[in-house]
Amino acid sequence: MTTIPLTGAAVLRSGLAASAPKPAPQQAAPASASFHAHNPATGAALEPVFHSATEADVDHAAALARQAAPHLASASGSQRASLLRLIAEKLLASQPQIVERAALETGLPPARLNGEMGRTVTQLRLFADLAAEGSWVDARIDEAQPDRKPTPRPAVCSMLRPLGPVVVFGASNFPLAFSVAGGDTAAALAAGCPVLVKAHPAHPGTSELVARVICASVAELGFPDGSFSHLADAGFTIGSALVRHPAVRAIAFTGSTAGGQALMRLAAERPEPIPCFAEMGSVNPVFILPQAMHARPEAIANGLAASFTLGSGQFCTKPGIVFLPRHAPDSFLQSLRSTVAALPPLGMLTSTIATRFQQSLAARTQDAGTASVFATAACPPKATEGTANAATAQATVFHLGLEDFLARPALQDEIFGPTVILVRYDRAEQLAHAADRLHGQLTATLHADEADLALAAPLLAALEARAGRLVWNAFPTGVEVCHAMVHGGPFPATSDSRFTSVGTASILRFARPVCFQDIPDPLLPPELQPANPLGIERLINGVRARR
Amino acid sequence: MTTIPLTGAAVLRSGLAASAPKPAPQQAAPASASFHAHNPATGAALEPVFHSATEADVDHAAALARQAAPHLASASGSQRASLLRLIAEKLLASQPQIVERAALETGLPPARLNGEMGRTVTQLRLFADLAAEGSWVDARIDEAQPDRKPTPRPAVCSMLRPLGPVVVFGASNFPLAFSVAGGDTAAALAAGCPVLVKAHPAHPGTSELVARVICASVAELGFPDGSFSHLADAGFTIGSALVRHPAVRAIAFTGSTAGGQALMRLAAERPEPIPCFAEMGSVNPVFILPQAMHARPEAIANGLAASFTLGSGQFCTKPGIVFLPRHAPDSFLQSLRSTVAALPPLGMLTSTIATRFQQSLAARTQDAGTASVFATAACPPKATEGTANAATAQATVFHLGLEDFLARPALQDEIFGPTVILVRYDRAEQLAHAADRLHGQLTATLHADEADLALAAPLLAALEARAGRLVWNAFPTGVEVCHAMVHGGPFPATSDSRFTSVGTASILRFARPVCFQDIPDPLLPPELQPANPLGIERLINGVRARR
Repeated sequence: MTTIPLTGAAVLRSGLAASAPKPAPQQAAPASASFHAHNPATGAALEPVFHSATEADVDHAAALARQAAPHLASASGSQRASLLRLIAEKLLASQPQIVERAALETGLPPARLNGEMGRTVTQLRLFADLAAEGSWVDARIDEAQPDRKPTPRPAVCSMLRPLGPVVVFGASNFPLAFSVAGGDTAAALAAGCPVLVKAHPAHPGTSELVARVICASVAELGFPDGSFSHLADAGFTIGSALVRHPAVRAIAFTGSTAGGQALMRLAAERPEPIPCFAEMGSVNPVFILPQAMHARPEAIANGLAASFTLGSGQFCTKPGIVFLPRHAPDSFLQSLRSTVAALPPLGMLTSTIATRFQQSLAARTQDAGTASVFATAACPPKATEGTANAATAQATVFHLGLEDFLARPALQDEIFGPTVILVRYDRAEQLAHAADRLHGQLTATLHADEADLALAAPLLAALEARAGRLVWNAFPTGVEVCHAMVHGGPFPATSDSRFTSVGTASILRFARPVCFQDIPDPLLPPELQPANPLGIERLINGVRARR
Repeated sequence: MTTIPLTGAAVLRSGLAASAPKPAPQQAAPASASFHAHNPATGAALEPVFHSATEADVDHAAALARQAAPHLASASGSQRASLLRLIAEKLLASQPQIVERAALETGLPPARLNGEMGRTVTQLRLFADLAAEGSWVDARIDEAQPDRKPTPRPAVCSMLRPLGPVVVFGASNFPLAFSVAGGDTAAALAAGCPVLVKAHPAHPGTSELVARVICASVAELGFPDGSFSHLADAGFTIGSALVRHPAVRAIAFTGSTAGGQALMRLAAERPEPIPCFAEMGSVNPVFILPQAMHARPEAIANGLAASFTLGSGQFCTKPGIVFLPRHAPDSFLQSLRSTVAALPPLGMLTSTIATRFQQSLAARTQDAGTASVFATAACPPKATEGTANAATAQATVFHLGLEDFLARPALQDEIFGPTVILVRYDRAEQLAHAADRLHGQLTATLHADEADLALAAPLLAALEARAGRLVWNAFPTGVEVCHAMVHGGPFPATSDSRFTSVGTASILRFARPVCFQDIPDPLLPPELQPANPLGIERLINGVRARR
């Protein structure tokens, strides 16, 4: 395997000949700050130096995206699909190099990263299929009724059209599937929107390698330069400038509550407010009903331990709160305690995340009382002065009663890392009320047996109003990429519960309906022409048909 | 016809026995302010006195709506349809009384109000059909693949579920079709959301009569009390309190830019932000291309005069800017000028709107120069001191060159009333650039002939990015209620261009997708059960089918 040399360029775009391993002109600008990636397993800085984009870079990239927008909007679904498929193909061709760099920058094991690359490629191809098939545009045709009284009815038709330039923020915890060529980028390009990626500074080399794949694909298929831009920055300046730029039409973000809420405010305070889809994570409550608890205590304990420590607990779908009967079998508690106690310190994505985890854990211990610590794994070694330290965390389980839990709203705050709270209830009838008190969630999970069904029905009804996805006898970590997936949920899980950020329906974030009244057939988009040249499904006079 | 006595109650709800013509208990509260409707044709106050709701009323109504939400959410589409159809039936039974009161309160002619009642009933029945048919929920089913490697695929299905309590603000200019039982209420109830109406204070009697129809329908069909509430207020306190209430889940508003933007801010600044759909109107540009101008100057002039003065120019789809060739035929200009000059003062909805129109007209005359006034109708008589005055306005046409227009962004501000700006262009090639400079619009219209088609194509492409509806050789006033309609558009036309507020797709404002993973069949909503008991269309493994 040949390692691909990194440029550390502040900006990557097809027109900048990004694949050449030489510094881009932006690097010469004196205002351009520089930064390094770090290996979280050792704390060591990684070469090369990366350069932060400037506000002038943002202006230029946004102006090019604005110019590219009509071209991408008028590209056919098949043309957009070709771009997505070429990106997928080129990613696979560079997979060893990308995974090698990603492993260095994130500390994630290569097996996980190879799996994530598979998911990334699957997403790109799923959106390619969606764009090529074409029916996602919700074409609607109401035919004219020239003889209607008292006034004739005009011919009215409508379809979803792209919003325009979309800013995508790369996520720290999925350096491939929710970053430069992740689901947001795939959905936006499939919708016909130019994409401006603000790379996550924790994995700039991975981001550069992926961005260069996209730039090369854009160039190879002759899409305009502004179809895709990649901007680096170690701080918040460039992200804020992108969100405020008048040419930008939508924001997609996956990350922390604080970060997402800051972007929501920026988007709402613009002279022309724009949609901001922020997926900010949640605590993903798990409800273990009495019969399930007694029927398979060890299986649930093992599943829970695996789920809340998967990826070192750095998933937005990590279960953070588990409701279980006060008189849970000893085997459940013993199994969970011994599994957790035996865990080594778990690698974290960055030293910042590791530090924040320790601070949050300390605050929670103080808030809930030290007696609330039910089980904890081996603590990471203390840092020796003057030496870099590995970013690690100890898996930790808290436990307390339902009333104590409900009295402390801060316990509902997400802690990003391997920790979970066990909440003991006396009567399962209390759970629907507890569910009503929960903040908005990405997921809610029930463990239930046949004899629990009567309890489960009202609980599910209550949870439906609080979560985007309801899971049965499984764990919420793992988000299937498919048509029916909803990776969303009421605030603060996301900024807008009406949308999902995973699955084919996530394309709806980046499109708006446009209506054509009595427009002559040759001027209509093919999706709305009477002959239906693309053969898509349409709603014709209220009836769905493929004609 | 028997006039129905009005109560002037601050709050109407089925549980308050609202149909009895006696003061509701809220009226006795000392904090409750009182107000009157006024006849805009005479300025006279109309009986009876109306009472403003209190913040305690808001708390109570919102709490009841929260309680009602799960009941409405679990009501079948057919049950929701029955409610909408009963409201329509009862509205028709009270139509003479409602129209009589609405004519007094708004000055709108009975013929127009009877037409608006027809539209209101049509909307209710359209949403009833949509709810009863049921496929609008976008049911998606991805079947399990237990043998998939490396991990089995779970069964995942999803559908749109109601958001919860929706606050609807009645509009001044459509006392029936965009008010208490208007499109927003119909869409929200069809989606399964309780509705809290903040009545528009300009037509409180009309609002009360319609609200009592809805309350009676809710009671007759046994829906819970909180399914619908109607709150009166002459000021902004109650509207703000409703938007801020934690039980409220979405806002629907049709009205001014200032009002809509205030609600957007309130909704975004809540501890838990909620979707706010504000339709704030626009100037609906009309582009007359050279050949069309020369082929039928008088027809276009007459159509324009009729369109910008329809309803005294108090439509959000009123054409406010018309682009026409500098060398337009004299017959166009003469025809427009003489038609406008011959118009009598036009009745306005309220004295406040009439006063604001005069102020805006004066500011525009100053901004664009007095020479810009191309034609004006007879001015309303000056008010005599001490006497009430009719609320009227004089139709007024401005004209200026394209460069002058583009140099004055304030000319893009909507003036609510019978006025339009003619903008003269030298070359039709300038128009796509001008279109790029326009603010977001509900509509954009082209008048074009065969020989204009080459000019029209790039102009349409530019306008698509700026408007929700593109109209060909007609005028934008008049919004067809159908499946394909888009009454929406980029900010500032609306708060979110991804939604429409007219047509069946407007139901999507009030629903969110919820996903069910491996949930046992008996616990799934009928829409997602394998046997498809409702017979709706669903997306099964990516393929749409009615099975």
